[in-house]
Amino acid sequence: MFTTVLIANRGEIALRVARTCRELGLRVVAVYSTEDRDAAVVDLADESVCIGPGPARASYLNMSAILEAARRTGADAVHPGYGFLSEVPDFAEACEAHGITFVGPPAPVIERLGDKAAARAAMAAAGLPMLPGSDGPVQCPDLAVKVAAQIGYPVIVKAVAGGGGRGMQVVHEPGDLVRQFREVKSAAQSLFGDDRLYLERYLPTARHVEVQILCDQYGHGVYLGLRDCSAQRRRQKIIEETPAPGLAPELARQMGEAALRGALATGYVGAGTFEFLVDGDGGFHFMEVNCRIQVEHPVTELTHGIDLVREQLLIAAGERLTLRQEDLAPRGAAMECRINAEDPSRDFVPAPGRLTELRLPAGPFVRVDTDAYPGGRVSPAYDPLLAKVVVWAPDRPQALLRMRRALGEFHAAGPGLATNRDFLLAVLDHPQFIEGTHDTSLVGGISCPGARGLTEEASIG
Amino acid sequence: MFTTVLIANRGEIALRVARTCRELGLRVVAVYSTEDRDAAVVDLADESVCIGPGPARASYLNMSAILEAARRTGADAVHPGYGFLSEVPDFAEACEAHGITFVGPPAPVIERLGDKAAARAAMAAAGLPMLPGSDGPVQCPDLAVKVAAQIGYPVIVKAVAGGGGRGMQVVHEPGDLVRQFREVKSAAQSLFGDDRLYLERYLPTARHVEVQILCDQYGHGVYLGLRDCSAQRRRQKIIEETPAPGLAPELARQMGEAALRGALATGYVGAGTFEFLVDGDGGFHFMEVNCRIQVEHPVTELTHGIDLVREQLLIAAGERLTLRQEDLAPRGAAMECRINAEDPSRDFVPAPGRLTELRLPAGPFVRVDTDAYPGGRVSPAYDPLLAKVVVWAPDRPQALLRMRRALGEFHAAGPGLATNRDFLLAVLDHPQFIEGTHDTSLVGGISCPGARGLTEEASIG
Repeated sequence: MFTTVLIANRGEIALRVARTCRELGLRVVAVYSTEDRDAAVVDLADESVCIGPGPARASYLNMSAILEAARRTGADAVHPGYGFLSEVPDFAEACEAHGITFVGPPAPVIERLGDKAAARAAMAAAGLPMLPGSDGPVQCPDLAVKVAAQIGYPVIVKAVAGGGGRGMQVVHEPGDLVRQFREVKSAAQSLFGDDRLYLERYLPTARHVEVQILCDQYGHGVYLGLRDCSAQRRRQKIIEETPAPGLAPELARQMGEAALRGALATGYVGAGTFEFLVDGDGGFHFMEVNCRIQVEHPVTELTHGIDLVREQLLIAAGERLTLRQEDLAPRGAAMECRINAEDPSRDFVPAPGRLTELRLPAGPFVRVDTDAYPGGRVSPAYDPLLAKVVVWAPDRPQALLRMRRALGEFHAAGPGLATNRDFLLAVLDHPQFIEGTHDTSLVGGISCPGARGLTEEASIG
Repeated sequence: MFTTVLIANRGEIALRVARTCRELGLRVVAVYSTEDRDAAVVDLADESVCIGPGPARASYLNMSAILEAARRTGADAVHPGYGFLSEVPDFAEACEAHGITFVGPPAPVIERLGDKAAARAAMAAAGLPMLPGSDGPVQCPDLAVKVAAQIGYPVIVKAVAGGGGRGMQVVHEPGDLVRQFREVKSAAQSLFGDDRLYLERYLPTARHVEVQILCDQYGHGVYLGLRDCSAQRRRQKIIEETPAPGLAPELARQMGEAALRGALATGYVGAGTFEFLVDGDGGFHFMEVNCRIQVEHPVTELTHGIDLVREQLLIAAGERLTLRQEDLAPRGAAMECRINAEDPSRDFVPAPGRLTELRLPAGPFVRVDTDAYPGGRVSPAYDPLLAKVVVWAPDRPQALLRMRRALGEFHAAGPGLATNRDFLLAVLDHPQFIEGTHDTSLVGGISCPGARGLTEEASIG
């Protein structure tokens, strides 16, 4: 097995990965930007290397700086976390070329699944249910108009290189398509350096339900239940939970098996997430695959009693997965709230700053994943995730009560700093959320006028 | 159900109880001494009342001050935590006399089980296996000599009113008995105001294994697995875990059933702990009952997925226990380490003080029960428990790795402050502890020369 893991990431996920490395007896190398020199993971790591200035492009996205840090520190494995280089096939390939184990799927698998049109084709071939959509990328607006007419409106225009809610646009009227197609194309080019687009039927009231999978290098895999991430604001998840409330066990099983089938068909290795839309009639439709650990992975860990990062590392080291589908026995319900440093009263503009005061929730069955500490700060250079508050309970109603209690304990203050805590509490108190009947339209988003009401409530509360 | 719970305690347990009250929608009243005015629970509570100066006698043991605080705040229930008034029958009785629900067993049950000689008799009558011992209290040294000769040496002389490791003395030689008997008698008088003593055979190499029980007001009860608390220093538990390592499942079942039988035979209501000694031949022997929540209750919570304080409150409110023995499905292994503010290099003398620096462990499956915070302090007026670090893992070896990682993250510093963290790490690294074959003689205590070695190691480390 490798002995030294370089964590090519920052923030809470870097710290979380470092902890599991420690438990496995692995040496930990942290890399950090000049902006992150006071990060908790730098303190915890056995060794740490500054890889450049604040902007991610100059540090956390700088492959050669990271590979050089690995060389200097003798790191023989790299854990990419999520975001940044975690789904960049060139990086996975470069690691392997330097004799460094990349903790994730092989580069060709990341490449294939990262191309959303190719992933769609692969999963359709594997027999996963798909929404009506274009057969591969659509080159020009004129063709898009024809394809959209066949699919039926509303349609969603998505970047082939997109994912995670970025690079997409819902089109409700044929008259808007050409203009919006061009907008997404231009955005895709600047976001991803790849302006290819594809089209899919858009389901305005679907639920976002995803499947966690683990596959080893020998063709054995399992699925670890479903996560419902329907509570999203502008396509960004803010509350995630498992099991998916109200989903029939038979449907959950079908989705789990479909995801695993798709994974094995593409030679997937490691931890991954298959995202689906579930419509009001209980149909499910493949959306995309995330080739990495997910922000919301803790809810699965708490119900299953499994450390997913440990499994990632053991799989990367070539060990066989010892988990068997029939032995998995998830218990109770878990829920995660993402506390962001943002200001709900000013349209959720990022509101980072120094944490002159910070009190984190604790107590039975409460887990807080964060690298924030009193006197530290949320940097304006990165995404404004401040803490993930995760709770477990024997059932969903108790998990909700526990989450309210935990969020109530959370307190952060500092010059310029604001958080979405009260907004999260307002979502938790929404009757549809309490019932678990909400879909992706509950919280904000362009197509959801109700979200503005919620926002206003929250900014008062 | 009652609506307002006064927590008649301080420190981590007051905070822990407050959290569960909150989740149940109960109003929380904190009481505090002048020494504790900056306590975290005071901040978290809906209302708080100062009940007197620092010394416990003047505040946390002051029944009338606490009852007056309950009257003023409209509290209709009192949770006593552990220690202080939690096992004082007069307090339970006074609460009920004032129309306040006492969260614990009825006063007569506390009284009977608090008298260790009477508890012994009751449990013998219920068919629990007992060590050879005196038939009730032994009045004078001369009688003690005769009884000890019948029992066989070594014997342990225990105060009838003692418990929790206080008010007892092991006697190895007949020639020492009279003197030591008189010493314990005098100590018992000053500690408990009750100088009655009883004798029992002493097992120098036994394991301390205890059973958690829950009984409702309607004669239904369950046992929730076993905790091994054999890692003790001078009869004070420092590391506790569940399940008890290496204990045969059949023996565990017998012990659980014996404890429940004993509880139901005495009309027990609420959460309680039956403590046993397990000898090298796998025999088990009743020791005592603790009529309250236990310091080490979190390990049981983590394996069973049950909030024991919630169960206490629901039982006290007259609800029926919904747990069924056959439905309980404990998972994995859990371990707790008690971090005390004490100095291993100076014979573990308490070393409280201000926490100018404090970093608590966190991450997957790590729970820290503490009311310490950076800038707060450990008061010299009370016991020096600083934090309980609790971990869960799928099995004991992984729990050990996780505990080492978690303790490694713990950091506290301040003028005059010292902790036993490194000593705990030394115990975790002891081959017998790693194997799980240790008994109560492993860590220190008068009869254990090995402990001094460990102490020295720790003071170096």
